[in-house]
Amino acid sequence: MPERLRRSSQSPIRWVTTEIRVRYAETDQMGVAYYSNYLVWFEVGRSEVCRDCGFSYAEMEARTQAYLAVAEARCRYHSPALYDEVLEIRTAVESLRKRTLNFRYEIIKKNSGVLVATGSTTHIVLDRNGRPKTLPEEYASLLKSSA
Amino acid sequence: MPERLRRSSQSPIRWVTTEIRVRYAETDQMGVAYYSNYLVWFEVGRSEVCRDCGFSYAEMEARTQAYLAVAEARCRYHSPALYDEVLEIRTAVESLRKRTLNFRYEIIKKNSGVLVATGSTTHIVLDRNGRPKTLPEEYASLLKSSA
Amino acid sequence: MPERLRRSSQSPIRWVTTEIRVRYAETDQMGVAYYSNYLVWFEVGRSEVCRDCGFSYAEMEARTQAYLAVAEARCRYHSPALYDEVLEIRTAVESLRKRTLNFRYEIIKKNSGVLVATGSTTHIVLDRNGRPKTLPEEYASLLKSSA
Amino acid sequence: MPERLRRSSQSPIRWVTTEIRVRYAETDQMGVAYYSNYLVWFEVGRSEVCRDCGFSYAEMEARTQAYLAVAEARCRYHSPALYDEVLEIRTAVESLRKRTLNFRYEIIKKNSGVLVATGSTTHIVLDRNGRPKTLPEEYASLLKSSA
Repeated sequence: MPERLRRSSQSPIRWVTTEIRVRYAETDQMGVAYYSNYLVWFEVGRSEVCRDCGFSYAEMEARTQAYLAVAEARCRYHSPALYDEVLEIRTAVESLRKRTLNFRYEIIKKNSGVLVATGSTTHIVLDRNGRPKTLPEEYASLLKSSA
Repeated sequence: MPERLRRSSQSPIRWVTTEIRVRYAETDQMGVAYYSNYLVWFEVGRSEVCRDCGFSYAEMEARTQAYLAVAEARCRYHSPALYDEVLEIRTAVESLRKRTLNFRYEIIKKNSGVLVATGSTTHIVLDRNGRPKTLPEEYASLLKSSA
Repeated sequence: MPERLRRSSQSPIRWVTTEIRVRYAETDQMGVAYYSNYLVWFEVGRSEVCRDCGFSYAEMEARTQAYLAVAEARCRYHSPALYDEVLEIRTAVESLRKRTLNFRYEIIKKNSGVLVATGSTTHIVLDRNGRPKTLPEEYASLLKSSA
Repeated sequence: MPERLRRSSQSPIRWVTTEIRVRYAETDQMGVAYYSNYLVWFEVGRSEVCRDCGFSYAEMEARTQAYLAVAEARCRYHSPALYDEVLEIRTAVESLRKRTLNFRYEIIKKNSGVLVATGSTTHIVLDRNGRPKTLPEEYASLLKSSA
């Protein structure tokens, strides 16, 4: 088993798609979705990747006491998301090591295909007490099937 | 010790006051603070009551595994709160029994004194597993000093 | 046209149902969905009622400059909602007058049918400047078809 | 007037500091502040920079119809922020051009001085209709006094 998995030109990225509808609560007085919500939507995308790989992130946390803490997050805002619009959240595992994981994201307006945002997050696997831990093998394998 | 403490006409309510400033994140496209944020501000008020009574809610949770789960919440919206306004959150323990607690709230614009909202919450004391529990005596006594 | 529409024993309430999945962002350190999110979910339900009645709340706001400001909100929390659970949000127009609207809500776990919460909101129709306004007739008629 | 202002080794960065207390609403079931809240705290820091420069961001929006839309946001999470902790949000204008602005942030635990997060945001000045606009000269000058 390779210690590390990383995108190469040979292995095209595998996107998992889910949808959300922009809530009124998520808008601000500029009339568009407030910028921190995009990180919430990224998380909705990550949950969907887990589900797509055959497990629930909730169950992984509860069974193995492994937590994917966020070490870094980036978002580029291309076009504003408006209330009631349906957005496609496309998420991919970009790289997967023993103790770190990288996800990539694209958010697109479902009706028009307009690009709303792109982003990435880096995660470290931690135990209940906040100490680094190895991603449980069972879940690492499942995520690799997606990556 | 009486099993139950409740407001009477003889004991005027004792308000604990704290301040928050409305965040851009809390506004919506109507140009005012979104209605669910008021419940967050109520919680800021409850934390302040604990601090005012000489303890930290965080510490109570950690030390005694007692959680104040919300059983009911009500809010009346009198005047909209705007971005960047400083609001006074006035919170009072309205009643305190062995396993339930009631808080009352008033939110007021600091500059003008205009009433923004009034509300109440009812809480049940639960243990880590969601089972009803008696409020630890030490903390019940401290809260009674406020009520 | 009657000035006011209100539930009677003869007219059973008409629920409109939509679904949300609890986000990690919506949980708190008690391990359950934080209590203010329920008001956000109620709003998701209201948007669905509009859609079900044949219009978009966004479009009503934009076209008629009529806003449904919340005057009062109540929520009773029956059973905690957990991360990743799918919840059914059932929403109904409870009453509809010229300038006020009442909604009722029930939130249920989709898998088990367990009741999570019940609630209600009262809304006043306002114009762009926060002055009371009559609900535009076209939208009042559409909502009456739901009530 | 130079078209562009940028940090140089000669001009040390000028931090503006404000404080927030972590709310229960901001925690998640991992027991720490959820990662999207840091972007909200960054915004609290930006508002403080405006205030420190002698104007209110709210007033700038209302008077000039200029909006600072976020084009990019980055955050590195160094140490988790816990419920009820007081955090210092240190914010600085990193660069200021006619139509774009960059802010830098550091978040620190007030009691211990532990570094919680660092980050940056890039903003584009837009008008009410989302079209690029020049930052009104009056406000550009005030911000330059801070940068």
